Amino acid sequence: MAEKPTLVPTLKAARKAAGALSVATTEAKNKALAAIAEALIAHKDEILAANQKDTDAAREAGRPGALIDRLTLSSERVDGIAKSLGEVIALPDPVGEIYDRSTRPNGLQVARMRMPIGVIGIVFEARPNVVVDAGALCLKSGNAVILRGGSEASHSNIVLGRIIAQAVKSAGLPEACVQVIENTDRALVLELLQARGKVDLVIPRGGEPLIRFVDENARVPVILHYKGVCHVYIDDEAMIDKALDIIVNAKVQRPGVCNAAETLLVHKEIAQLFLPEAAKWLTAEGVELRGCERARAVVPEMKEATEADWPAEYLDLILAVKVVDDMDDALAHIAKYSSGHTESIVTENAARAVRFLREADSSCVVHNASTRFNDGGELGLGAEIGISTTRLHAFGPMGLRELTASKFIVEGTGQIRT
Amino acid sequence: MAEKPTLVPTLKAARKAAGALSVATTEAKNKALAAIAEALIAHKDEILAANQKDTDAAREAGRPGALIDRLTLSSERVDGIAKSLGEVIALPDPVGEIYDRSTRPNGLQVARMRMPIGVIGIVFEARPNVVVDAGALCLKSGNAVILRGGSEASHSNIVLGRIIAQAVKSAGLPEACVQVIENTDRALVLELLQARGKVDLVIPRGGEPLIRFVDENARVPVILHYKGVCHVYIDDEAMIDKALDIIVNAKVQRPGVCNAAETLLVHKEIAQLFLPEAAKWLTAEGVELRGCERARAVVPEMKEATEADWPAEYLDLILAVKVVDDMDDALAHIAKYSSGHTESIVTENAARAVRFLREADSSCVVHNASTRFNDGGELGLGAEIGISTTRLHAFGPMGLRELTASKFIVEGTGQIRT
Repeated sequence: MAEKPTLVPTLKAARKAAGALSVATTEAKNKALAAIAEALIAHKDEILAANQKDTDAAREAGRPGALIDRLTLSSERVDGIAKSLGEVIALPDPVGEIYDRSTRPNGLQVARMRMPIGVIGIVFEARPNVVVDAGALCLKSGNAVILRGGSEASHSNIVLGRIIAQAVKSAGLPEACVQVIENTDRALVLELLQARGKVDLVIPRGGEPLIRFVDENARVPVILHYKGVCHVYIDDEAMIDKALDIIVNAKVQRPGVCNAAETLLVHKEIAQLFLPEAAKWLTAEGVELRGCERARAVVPEMKEATEADWPAEYLDLILAVKVVDDMDDALAHIAKYSSGHTESIVTENAARAVRFLREADSSCVVHNASTRFNDGGELGLGAEIGISTTRLHAFGPMGLRELTASKFIVEGTGQIRT
Repeated sequence: MAEKPTLVPTLKAARKAAGALSVATTEAKNKALAAIAEALIAHKDEILAANQKDTDAAREAGRPGALIDRLTLSSERVDGIAKSLGEVIALPDPVGEIYDRSTRPNGLQVARMRMPIGVIGIVFEARPNVVVDAGALCLKSGNAVILRGGSEASHSNIVLGRIIAQAVKSAGLPEACVQVIENTDRALVLELLQARGKVDLVIPRGGEPLIRFVDENARVPVILHYKGVCHVYIDDEAMIDKALDIIVNAKVQRPGVCNAAETLLVHKEIAQLFLPEAAKWLTAEGVELRGCERARAVVPEMKEATEADWPAEYLDLILAVKVVDDMDDALAHIAKYSSGHTESIVTENAARAVRFLREADSSCVVHNASTRFNDGGELGLGAEIGISTTRLHAFGPMGLRELTASKFIVEGTGQIRT
């Protein structure tokens, strides 16, 4: 009889590796990252052969083209993944970074120091590149990582995991710094999600059903990336040209991603002026508009929006359009329907912009720019492991810093408490 | 038939109040805090009468003296609680605070802005002052709070809750900003702990069994304050006088609190010189010493330590003593037995101190000072709502800042992504 699969050895090895990794030098970690990059190139044939098995199986099973797309590695993609490791090497090491220094009246020097979180679990779907990308960010931030990908990418993930573990070991760090769960038994995902005290954080990467599954089953801390229902609000003091550029970019530049705009809110005083122009430009880009009654009074060609449109994440060339009374009305709509991802205001009224930045309750609030800038690279974080819509610990793009915790450090000269 | 009690109206009112509170001005929040302070003094008789009922019942039930102590309010204690509200008023408002500003190559101004977390649940035991202390910190940081105290303090908590709600309302904020769950049915605690999406964070305040109950049952994010098994490591390059002052202070100044030292680690090269002096001073203060074999070889009067002593949080005048080979040995002992609260090193060797600060894996790591400084007030945070031993979001003392989340704010001049 086959033994029941268990993560116990994986979890133990991860905790031990995390101990060694938390005190590893930046040089040691960068050396391991460079070894991974080299190994990916050296074993490219092996990676592509394994990936071929996955894509063949997905095609045979009639899986959707978008999934096969995400699943597929090419020679160029492997080169790109290896190259991205160079970018992680170039990023500053967050571990040991000291900030918020102050001196207490008794002379104690108080500060905070970033430290690794410990053991991080990554649960993901069909993108095998996550093994390398997430593995590299966790390693650089001093965290041991346990990766569990979808069964569609199983062959690719196993090969990538073994190559990485070998490279990490060859560079002098424990191979268990990066572990792939090779067995795709669903019981093991649950074991990972419920390993309190053994896993310090789980970050899921994938579509809404996966996120919901993790949210509902996790007994360890999780940071989630739910959907992006992002709004652009055109104030009556907006400059029309700026507003047109921004809404077209926010909707059209890459409609399938989470920071693309899904709803356009327009102040009633500028609707007559702005909406016909916006409709012209957006329609020319192939966008289907679904308007409220007041929007359709200005642009009758729009489809009629229903209640289902306001909370919708289309991820497609569709835009919901609503005319609002004023900014308060826009903020109330956002408070009701937003997913807490990204909101943008277009206005030349500085006071109103400040109030919008303060009051809109999302991970990234933008004034006079596209929602598409809510991205780790664009905001200056370097690489990102995801965009958190969880408020605690990290909200918005998560870079290396967000993969650390912070302790207090206190330096004295013999102080005691009286 | 009585209706089944439910938190649904409480949770709904809290979310609505959180919306109003998140955009309240500092002045409005301070006005509410001042109104609470005034109301506590004005209703002192009522508070003390309710408290009398609780303490009478506790005495009748034969509850331990320490519990009755924590439960008891006096006229002076109520004055003290009211006065502490003045200190919270004086603290800077964290909401809207902007930090980490940078300018991107495309001219975008990126920064982070602190915002309230939302709805916070506080589950606590017999200390009725928590209603006011935690209520005030949540209110100042813009969070609606739901408080659920132990049944021992029920009369006190209900009266305090009603006085606070009335005062908050009189100051123009929603009374549901601070809510006390008046029904002590255990099912309601579980409802609070499992109200995903309705409660954004739960912080338990109390003994280990309560913390464990919350940890095991919560389905919402929690920040826990587990026990403090704090270590003082005396390096062979320590100055003896400093080392004596620090270990005596860390153990004796207030032995019943979480940042008191529980284990003394001594480098083997300094044990002969240091331990007899330390034993003399500590014994004179009434401390019982429990030593390892090597420690007892130097000071035979010590009791023999058993394996159970190393992870023990005595909260009493008892100290475990272990001779270690060197700092690595001390760090290994700490990694194995520490609760992640506070560790202190006494040494004149700067390089070793830096390594200890980096490698000891606890919420507060101290060089040449007492462990007793791991406290919000002492570290400059102003008031504290607790000391987190959870790494994510907040690690160590939690002040007003730690009761906020941070969003990205982006200010542009029409930038779009290309």
